[in-house]
Amino acid sequence: MQTPYYLIDKSRLLPNLEKIAHLRETSGAKALLALKCFATWSVFDMMSEYMDGTTSSSLFEVKLGREKFPGETHAYSVAWADHEIDEVLASSDKIIFNTAAQLSRFEEVSRGHTRGLRVNPGVSTSSFDLADPARPFSRLGEHDPKDIEPVLEQISGFMFHNNCENADFERFDNMLGSIEQRFGHLIRQMKWISLGGGIHFTGEDYPLDRLAERLKRFAGENEVQVYLEPGEATITKSTTLEVTVLDTLFNGKNLAIVDSSIEAHMLDLLIYRESAKMDESGDQPWMICGKSCLAGDIFGEFMFPKALNPGDRLSIQDAAGYTMVKKNWFNGVQMPSIAIRELDGTERLVRGFTYDDFSAALS
Amino acid sequence: MQTPYYLIDKSRLLPNLEKIAHLRETSGAKALLALKCFATWSVFDMMSEYMDGTTSSSLFEVKLGREKFPGETHAYSVAWADHEIDEVLASSDKIIFNTAAQLSRFEEVSRGHTRGLRVNPGVSTSSFDLADPARPFSRLGEHDPKDIEPVLEQISGFMFHNNCENADFERFDNMLGSIEQRFGHLIRQMKWISLGGGIHFTGEDYPLDRLAERLKRFAGENEVQVYLEPGEATITKSTTLEVTVLDTLFNGKNLAIVDSSIEAHMLDLLIYRESAKMDESGDQPWMICGKSCLAGDIFGEFMFPKALNPGDRLSIQDAAGYTMVKKNWFNGVQMPSIAIRELDGTERLVRGFTYDDFSAALS
Repeated sequence: MQTPYYLIDKSRLLPNLEKIAHLRETSGAKALLALKCFATWSVFDMMSEYMDGTTSSSLFEVKLGREKFPGETHAYSVAWADHEIDEVLASSDKIIFNTAAQLSRFEEVSRGHTRGLRVNPGVSTSSFDLADPARPFSRLGEHDPKDIEPVLEQISGFMFHNNCENADFERFDNMLGSIEQRFGHLIRQMKWISLGGGIHFTGEDYPLDRLAERLKRFAGENEVQVYLEPGEATITKSTTLEVTVLDTLFNGKNLAIVDSSIEAHMLDLLIYRESAKMDESGDQPWMICGKSCLAGDIFGEFMFPKALNPGDRLSIQDAAGYTMVKKNWFNGVQMPSIAIRELDGTERLVRGFTYDDFSAALS
Repeated sequence: MQTPYYLIDKSRLLPNLEKIAHLRETSGAKALLALKCFATWSVFDMMSEYMDGTTSSSLFEVKLGREKFPGETHAYSVAWADHEIDEVLASSDKIIFNTAAQLSRFEEVSRGHTRGLRVNPGVSTSSFDLADPARPFSRLGEHDPKDIEPVLEQISGFMFHNNCENADFERFDNMLGSIEQRFGHLIRQMKWISLGGGIHFTGEDYPLDRLAERLKRFAGENEVQVYLEPGEATITKSTTLEVTVLDTLFNGKNLAIVDSSIEAHMLDLLIYRESAKMDESGDQPWMICGKSCLAGDIFGEFMFPKALNPGDRLSIQDAAGYTMVKKNWFNGVQMPSIAIRELDGTERLVRGFTYDDFSAALS
């Protein structure tokens, strides 16, 4: 298959899904895929056997969830537009408003629909200010119980989403405790509570059963149905970005240029100034660079057993989350195809991108 | 017209194009549009009356230039792949290699084609490490005359691209002087020299005629045809991103959420942590926020004469460069349409994006 392509490996996706299924069974929580992280619908059939549905950040994600992912469709957005609300309601099982003002704006049209409100507990685990919902002047959710109480009658649930790549169960436990302390009297008036995503519970050594016990206790004591919205946790380590070395040079370091670009194909590496992941061996360091014009288009520096050469194939690891959903035509760099490795090992291309796609993205 | 949409205003594009035409006439330099910055081909017919062609960063940009923009098509890429080289050659007037190694790799197949080499002078004007071609370990171009001399016979031109939003003529003049000092003996063996983009010569108060004189002198003394590759300079201030306020709230500051997103629609604001531009008046500060889930999805803080309300229309200024070429489907946020305001003031939609476009971007 011609590189570049994202390769979703079902045999590497499966262990995550099995952990999710185990957590659902032992905790009673429901699990919804967060489409903002991963929306490659060719594997939704498989995922839906282990998960309860999807949650979303926009009308189009709502529609994709409803159309492609069997199960529940939660509709959340930071702000709904007047002209899209009817379609949001028609395509969702629950609608979650970001503010009491949005709820009031659409109160009449959404009456009869299961409705919720995002609540911002003012604490988070994000180490990036950019991604921290609890940052100063945050627009994400209602902060003050006094602003929530007047609309309690109109809703049956809350969404709290304040975890971010949180691999620390104690931290999650403490934050949930503080949420209960501050909002418990309101939570107990609800029927369902979404605790959002960002809990890295499919990671190795994560105390999954302690999490299950904690969620079950939270649900029992507050008499609510708990929802989780795993994004990264669902697809972590399932996917590689397959690339080919096009050129090598030495300029103080060994440099290899590959047929991809972090800005176009793995955008978060650029936004958060992080390194890609690669399986390493050997003692020869190489800087792996993208082929866009951007000087800082660099995947990272990795060890190899021998010199790289044009034609060498490399696999960038852990390339599922926030990659395909953000890919773009920067520089007109060939957009990676999307391929799936089935459980029996066969690989199939599910989407390729052509010059016509590039040209049509503009006008 | 339903927001969000990019609005390209030909009457605001025209003054830039007229300055470019003036510079061409007075300096003898040719001007090629850098498609990496702006590739909205619906206005190429107009642009091509004032410019000589396009330059590119990939096969797809080469093809777009050849297909949509009358005039010369320069083909540059940080690295060409074996399988695309034939098409690159068939669609271009000149090919510029990033390294001597790439030139050697494709020496045979490209024989007979007008060929050039990117040379990195090791100095630049970028204030962003990310965008600095002269950064340590840069992969962009050949640095050492010793590595260039062996391939001189195979090429007839060089590309230097080391300016970046450089509004300072003295700085440009000095850098060109140091390029001549270091590479002059090689330059004088060439027929053409591209000085790249990043020279902000369409800005107000830029000493255009001094630039013209300098370029003309450079061309005369070295007996070369000079090319410029303006990107941002071509389209600066020509375009707005038209958005609508969807919700307002107060959380320590006045916040307004609009129906767009910097990550999805004006990506460089996020990558370079910059503020959008807006025409301001009044004394009421509002933070203008995007509607994606990203906590840091913020256009900036601006002054308004009165409180903002849902339904209010806002125009984000200077939204042409590196925006449409990088837009993406993050969060499934409605991708802005692309519209053109003709010289007679009429506005027409040239491209809208639908749910089917979103769904088809994945698989």
